[in-house]
Amino acid sequence: MIERQEIKTLLQDPPVNTRVTIMGWVRAWRGNRFMVINDGSGPETLQVVVDGERFDEETIRAIGFHACVGVTGTLAESQGAGQAVEVIAEEITIFGENDLSRYPLQPKKQSMEFLRDNAQFRMRTNTFSSVFRVRHGVAYAVNKYFHDRGYYYLHTPIITGNDAEGAGEMFRVSVLDPTNPPRTADGKIDYNQDFFGKATNLTVSGQLQAEIGAMALGKVYTFGPTFRAENSNTSRHLAEFWMIEPEIAFADIENDMDLAEDFVKYLINYCLEHYAADLQFLDERIQELEKNMKATDRRPMGLIDTLRFVVENDFARITYTEALDILLQSKTYKKGKFEFDLSWGTDLQAEHERYLVEKHFQRPVIVRDYPKDIKAFYMRQNDDGKTVAAMDVLFPYIGEVIGGSQREEREDRLRQRMAEMNVHADELEWYLQLRTFGGCPHAGFGLGFERIVQFITGMGNIRDVIPFPRAPRLAQF
Amino acid sequence: MIERQEIKTLLQDPPVNTRVTIMGWVRAWRGNRFMVINDGSGPETLQVVVDGERFDEETIRAIGFHACVGVTGTLAESQGAGQAVEVIAEEITIFGENDLSRYPLQPKKQSMEFLRDNAQFRMRTNTFSSVFRVRHGVAYAVNKYFHDRGYYYLHTPIITGNDAEGAGEMFRVSVLDPTNPPRTADGKIDYNQDFFGKATNLTVSGQLQAEIGAMALGKVYTFGPTFRAENSNTSRHLAEFWMIEPEIAFADIENDMDLAEDFVKYLINYCLEHYAADLQFLDERIQELEKNMKATDRRPMGLIDTLRFVVENDFARITYTEALDILLQSKTYKKGKFEFDLSWGTDLQAEHERYLVEKHFQRPVIVRDYPKDIKAFYMRQNDDGKTVAAMDVLFPYIGEVIGGSQREEREDRLRQRMAEMNVHADELEWYLQLRTFGGCPHAGFGLGFERIVQFITGMGNIRDVIPFPRAPRLAQF
Repeated sequence: MIERQEIKTLLQDPPVNTRVTIMGWVRAWRGNRFMVINDGSGPETLQVVVDGERFDEETIRAIGFHACVGVTGTLAESQGAGQAVEVIAEEITIFGENDLSRYPLQPKKQSMEFLRDNAQFRMRTNTFSSVFRVRHGVAYAVNKYFHDRGYYYLHTPIITGNDAEGAGEMFRVSVLDPTNPPRTADGKIDYNQDFFGKATNLTVSGQLQAEIGAMALGKVYTFGPTFRAENSNTSRHLAEFWMIEPEIAFADIENDMDLAEDFVKYLINYCLEHYAADLQFLDERIQELEKNMKATDRRPMGLIDTLRFVVENDFARITYTEALDILLQSKTYKKGKFEFDLSWGTDLQAEHERYLVEKHFQRPVIVRDYPKDIKAFYMRQNDDGKTVAAMDVLFPYIGEVIGGSQREEREDRLRQRMAEMNVHADELEWYLQLRTFGGCPHAGFGLGFERIVQFITGMGNIRDVIPFPRAPRLAQF
Repeated sequence: MIERQEIKTLLQDPPVNTRVTIMGWVRAWRGNRFMVINDGSGPETLQVVVDGERFDEETIRAIGFHACVGVTGTLAESQGAGQAVEVIAEEITIFGENDLSRYPLQPKKQSMEFLRDNAQFRMRTNTFSSVFRVRHGVAYAVNKYFHDRGYYYLHTPIITGNDAEGAGEMFRVSVLDPTNPPRTADGKIDYNQDFFGKATNLTVSGQLQAEIGAMALGKVYTFGPTFRAENSNTSRHLAEFWMIEPEIAFADIENDMDLAEDFVKYLINYCLEHYAADLQFLDERIQELEKNMKATDRRPMGLIDTLRFVVENDFARITYTEALDILLQSKTYKKGKFEFDLSWGTDLQAEHERYLVEKHFQRPVIVRDYPKDIKAFYMRQNDDGKTVAAMDVLFPYIGEVIGGSQREEREDRLRQRMAEMNVHADELEWYLQLRTFGGCPHAGFGLGFERIVQFITGMGNIRDVIPFPRAPRLAQF
């Protein structure tokens, strides 16, 4: 049995003048006398005072940057500046030496790309340990928010035989011999011989199945991995990402927008309250990065100020048609400075979304009532015959963070829309039956988990907020 | 905006003589006067009194079993027996009629197989709504347990390029044209042209990646889907299931066993405390099912009694060698009544595990120190040269619920074991580096989430505790 105390707990109410045992990794080693230890429990470090007379030179030499050690000693009020308490070492155990001449990481700035390639160690850096603690905090807040409000967590399937949603390219899942697969008489792959007796893919969304849950348990949410096999090699896209999809019976688009705004504000508030030290570090990191940038390239506000601003202000709420008017009236449009064209019926591009959020409203914006032809078949048709009860929540820097809608609960309208959009009704008979038998108005949305973690941590690349990113030609670890 | 009150909340502290609006599904309809509504918020129903003079016959006729309705009226103390309060209906909205002549479900007992095939409706039954509320409760308790104790939730990858763990058959993930895939000069599939530039599979475990997290953040856990492409068509196996894998730095096998026992007891206690009404229903369901069974086929204890017994008693802890002695001394063995053979070095089969748990100890058992040749390469080698610091937690009815180990932190020992077991070290260089640079003793385990949900709900088939089960030839929805 191994026993130790965690640094985060020790520093909350330090039991001064007691004997403590801490274990962790050496973050710094000052003048062969002050060893700075972090054990991952929080961003805090604890300084260990090593008396050169008590320990032999060999031990002291063996302890380098990122070596793993255990220290037993007395927790004392610190004589030096910079920390309230320190440990006067009585025993030191070296669990894992670290030969710096071979260690991939070095005690200096490393590029984000380099750290991504060495993700087995990147969580030991200040930046990434803070990012992944905050990521945990957001995940916990997701579950707590819904649980406290009577939602039930629903695990929707990862492997699916539905490819009807058409939300993008999908990954195929199979156990057939790829070199020489069984074939039917007409030369096609014989998926009847595959594991599931049919062709299967990785899910792009749990929404359709979540509607089953909402039509029985009332309020549910999913929180699981989703996949897009799109060849998007950008700082905003991942091939494998986590998504949160609440689905609520007895709700319309207004309930949906209220829920979305309340929910993301809760997540941000939770982190501001519980991960203040990590956010402080990440805020300072950005200031450091921006020091040598032109003023126009810098963020208009620091990280924590941005987060506070979002939770303290109402999101702007406009229709797609109003958004279009604003954009068409803008100087940017009139000077021909948008790359993509704009007219009623075209989808808003990232540049348009950023204009609305960052220039026009200067706060998050919810755009609703999009043209039906740029949205999915299941969204509820508005009375104007042209738009659907869809809504997107747009954030500064990261763009769309939430996409949602009221669902079409009228079976005839849904069937008609599926026919118009060439969605195979036979594969989705179960989905239609949710309308035939005991259906009701309902709504929901999807939140891209990494997008909100990116916003809260201020990281520039989405690959740096997921422990092991998956993207085109990237499946390390 | 739709506004309503949830039945669970209303019944906690009923605001008698106020006007309320409830919305839900009709569970029963007594004498065209008493309508029993459930809204999924809990197992509780609320009775609505429908005055025949106030509502026209057409409305009343349209409201059938599992129809979806909204009712506004006065919450009053009930005149009848069986409920404390009821709603005197003033307005009734029919959201979704339900034509019983076409509805797949009928207001009578249906087989579990039938309900599985109609999973779009099974959550509306008493049994499945309770099961999936309890499933939520277990999931929430998992996150709360670890969060409250300073563990960080880590999302390990679902798509992986590692196939080194060898924990079973894997599903292949690809975007190559399966009919005519690109090939290399020697006729093999050219995975260099696939999405990730190499062959990829669905994960069988996040443990190896979780060790990266533990070696930086100290204590982490995973909670995500894992996959086995094994052709096991049993009531105990799924092809897609959720797994929880804590991984802890500065921990040995003793810490690991203590954590495992404390953790599963917490999950059970959490459900006993917070899902009492659902468990009560599931307990009575089993009693009902067992009425016509022979005494020897019935459970020795009811569901809730079993759960209480598990949390109130210490788990037995024995070594594999002791377990073998007990089995070899048993009457069952001596009478030749075990199907599978037993000698030192063979793995324990389900029949042996059940004997130890249900006959010999009559409580959960932790077996440790298994022969190294039946366990994975990464488990820490004991000093006897024959066994490894592995441990399995065995439960009544469901058998193995947890498998864990202290990890081999000594690089030379690990390399040697990988060579002996033909694990490709070149694919796991990053894993070995966790030992080379700043490693330490660490341990962890995996808990099969559906297994523990099955134990807590008392359901006989694991397919009935996951919303959309995946098994050979089964990928509906």
